[in-house]
Amino acid sequence: MAHLTSSVEYGIHCLLFLVGTETSMSSRELAELQGVSPSFVAKIFPKLEKAGIVSASEGVRGGYRLGRPADRISFLDIVDAIEGEKPLFDCQNIRLRCALFGDKPPAWAKAGRCAIHDVMVKAEQAMRASLASQSLADVAATFGRKAPDQFFADVGGWIDDHAGRRGKPPRESPG
Amino acid sequence: MAHLTSSVEYGIHCLLFLVGTETSMSSRELAELQGVSPSFVAKIFPKLEKAGIVSASEGVRGGYRLGRPADRISFLDIVDAIEGEKPLFDCQNIRLRCALFGDKPPAWAKAGRCAIHDVMVKAEQAMRASLASQSLADVAATFGRKAPDQFFADVGGWIDDHAGRRGKPPRESPG
Repeated sequence: MAHLTSSVEYGIHCLLFLVGTETSMSSRELAELQGVSPSFVAKIFPKLEKAGIVSASEGVRGGYRLGRPADRISFLDIVDAIEGEKPLFDCQNIRLRCALFGDKPPAWAKAGRCAIHDVMVKAEQAMRASLASQSLADVAATFGRKAPDQFFADVGGWIDDHAGRRGKPPRESPG
Repeated sequence: MAHLTSSVEYGIHCLLFLVGTETSMSSRELAELQGVSPSFVAKIFPKLEKAGIVSASEGVRGGYRLGRPADRISFLDIVDAIEGEKPLFDCQNIRLRCALFGDKPPAWAKAGRCAIHDVMVKAEQAMRASLASQSLADVAATFGRKAPDQFFADVGGWIDDHAGRRGKPPRESPG
């Protein structure tokens, strides 16, 4: 299994729709707009809220919006919020089990961090530094260079349309 | 679950006992010396052999030895050999599922790699570069500065003793 789960993928894609909009969106609307499972997204956003990445408001006009500017939300913030504490490597300190030690590993064998664990921690730090160097705003900008203006107009229309419908009875189907 | 499993931890600890010895060791001996499960180690070493990290020989004096000098065996080599292809992030290309696209995502949305995936690939490359920069020889040297000379003498004695016993009937227990 990949280290970073699809929760991270779904969460970031949905967060991108909150960049540059003043309208709050429910997790159901975000899921619908992105075309992913609403129940899945409903589990992700409370974690993002707890980390301050989004803020939530109640009521007919309520929903989620970004909790701080997108350039202050790093990929590392999002990954940590969604995945929680999840080490790259889980050292079991098996260095102490060497047959020569019997039941009493010597002090030198216990001292400091295991040299193997140390290598893994450095690799994890390199990964985390890379994730910390990229913000939600960076990726929104990359996406903005790729998508035509019409797409953003259509997204804005979709969001306003859904926000406008809240609290109203469902539209009658035309058929 | 951690990204790198305990197979990596067990494998590297056992490999360290092959650094600087000319004597081949069976996976059972390596497991016994390190104090870990022999059946677990028996599954790891064929993978290391396939990757050329160890070479195996048959017969009473047979077993595993390093397949190349320890300074040419990186942590990345070992991780890749044991874990196989295991991406940090498994992009499902959900960018194509946006509700506005219907069943026909436009060409611009499909072009190139997803910007989110791109961030994850960079983080993975940073982690891999860090693992590639550390060799088995580096960690053996770190360990060598920590452990007393007597430890290495004892390890050598243990290995020679076990190699000498091969093919002979088990010693009678003293009791």
